Amino acid sequence: MTDLLLRDVRPLGGAPLDVLVQGGRIAALAPGLAAPPGVAVEDGRGMLLLPGFVEGHTHLDKTTFHLPDWLVNEVGPRIEDKIDTEREWRARTGHDAGAASLAMAKAFLAAGTTRIRSHVDVDTAAGTRHVERVLETRATMAPVQEIQIVAFPQSGMLARQGTDRLLDAALAMGADIVGGLDPCAIERDPVRHLDIVFGLAQKHGKPVDIHLHEPGSMGAFSLDLILERTRALGMEGKVVVSHAFCLGDLAERERDALLARMAALGVAIATTAPASRPVPLVGPCRAAGVTIFGGNDGIRDTWTPYGSPDMLERAMLIGLRNNFRRDDEVALAFECVAGAGARGCGFGDHGLAPGARADLVLVEARSLAEAVVARPVRRLVVSAGRVAARDGALVA
Amino acid sequence: MTDLLLRDVRPLGGAPLDVLVQGGRIAALAPGLAAPPGVAVEDGRGMLLLPGFVEGHTHLDKTTFHLPDWLVNEVGPRIEDKIDTEREWRARTGHDAGAASLAMAKAFLAAGTTRIRSHVDVDTAAGTRHVERVLETRATMAPVQEIQIVAFPQSGMLARQGTDRLLDAALAMGADIVGGLDPCAIERDPVRHLDIVFGLAQKHGKPVDIHLHEPGSMGAFSLDLILERTRALGMEGKVVVSHAFCLGDLAERERDALLARMAALGVAIATTAPASRPVPLVGPCRAAGVTIFGGNDGIRDTWTPYGSPDMLERAMLIGLRNNFRRDDEVALAFECVAGAGARGCGFGDHGLAPGARADLVLVEARSLAEAVVARPVRRLVVSAGRVAARDGALVA
Repeated sequence: MTDLLLRDVRPLGGAPLDVLVQGGRIAALAPGLAAPPGVAVEDGRGMLLLPGFVEGHTHLDKTTFHLPDWLVNEVGPRIEDKIDTEREWRARTGHDAGAASLAMAKAFLAAGTTRIRSHVDVDTAAGTRHVERVLETRATMAPVQEIQIVAFPQSGMLARQGTDRLLDAALAMGADIVGGLDPCAIERDPVRHLDIVFGLAQKHGKPVDIHLHEPGSMGAFSLDLILERTRALGMEGKVVVSHAFCLGDLAERERDALLARMAALGVAIATTAPASRPVPLVGPCRAAGVTIFGGNDGIRDTWTPYGSPDMLERAMLIGLRNNFRRDDEVALAFECVAGAGARGCGFGDHGLAPGARADLVLVEARSLAEAVVARPVRRLVVSAGRVAARDGALVA
Repeated sequence: MTDLLLRDVRPLGGAPLDVLVQGGRIAALAPGLAAPPGVAVEDGRGMLLLPGFVEGHTHLDKTTFHLPDWLVNEVGPRIEDKIDTEREWRARTGHDAGAASLAMAKAFLAAGTTRIRSHVDVDTAAGTRHVERVLETRATMAPVQEIQIVAFPQSGMLARQGTDRLLDAALAMGADIVGGLDPCAIERDPVRHLDIVFGLAQKHGKPVDIHLHEPGSMGAFSLDLILERTRALGMEGKVVVSHAFCLGDLAERERDALLARMAALGVAIATTAPASRPVPLVGPCRAAGVTIFGGNDGIRDTWTPYGSPDMLERAMLIGLRNNFRRDDEVALAFECVAGAGARGCGFGDHGLAPGARADLVLVEARSLAEAVVARPVRRLVVSAGRVAARDGALVA
């Protein structure tokens, strides 16, 4: 790790200044800093400086991003179709979750993402193999990228006996977070599902992140059960609800009552801001004091051909979904893939301030809003003080 | 105009073949074509061949795309705020609709768009100046890009006396299409507004394209009046309704009744597929036999910081908005910025078939779906038989 002086950069589009990086952290931000002896100097040429991006909800293990052939998607419309199609495809092709996750993680880094929360499938067909392979990717990337692994029962836990023991094993071998999935709609026994999820969290002293696709009052019921357990078990600040689509179609009063409880318990929301269905909106969540942050969900996998390792594009999609047009609104969309993502996932020391981890991204843009809508090439990516990428490509 | 043989390309991802271009048109598509004497040969290296893209609804005159400074958006939430803000900004800055539209049109061409329908503001402040300047852009671009101009009363017609005469003048000087705007919500006198719009269409023998942002039953009422006039005046196939948001929030039976009438009258829909509100969906429109096609709306103007001259990106946003995941569905999203756009706007001879205008785009993609989701650089753009761009940049 070399120390670094970044000259003439505009943090979030503000006035130009210099950034001194020492020991992997931001030592100082001020105009006209002197380079200490032996410190490498980068000329930022007045570029926009952004903090490293946070991908708060993806599935590194599922992608076909690294494969030579295009995967033709012919999947059916139901969520169960997608789950079954994926499991069968994986078994048939011998999908390599290690190669997939490593290629994807590197693409994220080249585009400025220095922190990732990845859900990773655990099921009775694949066992803990995907977690094992993503743990290898995590170790490989550790010097320049922080990856959290959610042990995720994608194929359901209750209908497939032994999944709970596999999750237990995945957490014992290093997965960071206990995953869960639609306690009513998929699992069909919400109390039993959530008691297992929260039981594993208690056993391993690890947080929880639950996929909740359930709409309307069904989703509200599951969310209620989640909040009840969060409070009863003292897991404030340790629970994320991913998607939480129900918050997009409840009446405002019911929605706001749930948001108030989430805020009080420090339960955060991960959103991909899909365009095709009701979603929790950023404005009401923030107004209630709930942290809401962004992610791609899967990228070019058997579920979807969409997605991109570019978190500025995800910020744009969040902005479009929330009809954020003003510059101060677009800044909120960016916050979803930066500070809010770090808070929601528990990535420490994020941001552009002395003492923070030196995760820095330089782009040619006149303003933060322009960076989001134009998504210019990443001229420089610094992660934990190391130069990780230039001009969109990883440094060897 | 040079004739051209394009070797080894895969039309829409199909089997490799060659394309012979003569006199600005596709003369033949087949494997192993011989190059006639004197014909330039391009090696397509197995790249994906797409037809030239169609931008079906934009506002070339409004953009700030060409300006050195970023426009900070601080506009209010109502549509009237956006209309007033824009008119005042234009007057204050002396906005140059000629430079704006030319820069934007060129950016579209470099990204493969060879046909554009642009609404152009006509109002009592700017008069017909914007139309005059976009007519200049149209003339400049004519050899390589076909631009349709809609004379568009953005600031309303009824509240600003004389706007109808300005529209009349704009049509006389060469605008192609009569524009209109929210007959109830903005104009507040739907019959009078539509009678002027359709009266101008009759007088000039030109088609109609009406912005209809009105929601629900109000929008359905305006649409009913539009369809009534289309039939009464024998304007079948000559009317486009832009946005038609109401079709996104009506009950299915009412929606389908309107769609059936639209199909019978050849009334098409232009959609930007915004993520933040109900919109007409591609599936029901196509099932009813209604042509639905895509556009950006404004790009980086006082209304919105979003938008891109890349119609593959618009296709992606249409796909996301419609939850199109299967390859055959993503192909429908692409159709919205290609064949359907040409049909809806009345751009003739579009497509990849002998006799069609030789508007050709080459990209490195394994499939049509990949071209939409990955939006790769345009390696070659041919327009009316001329090589117009390479590697994303215009050829001089």
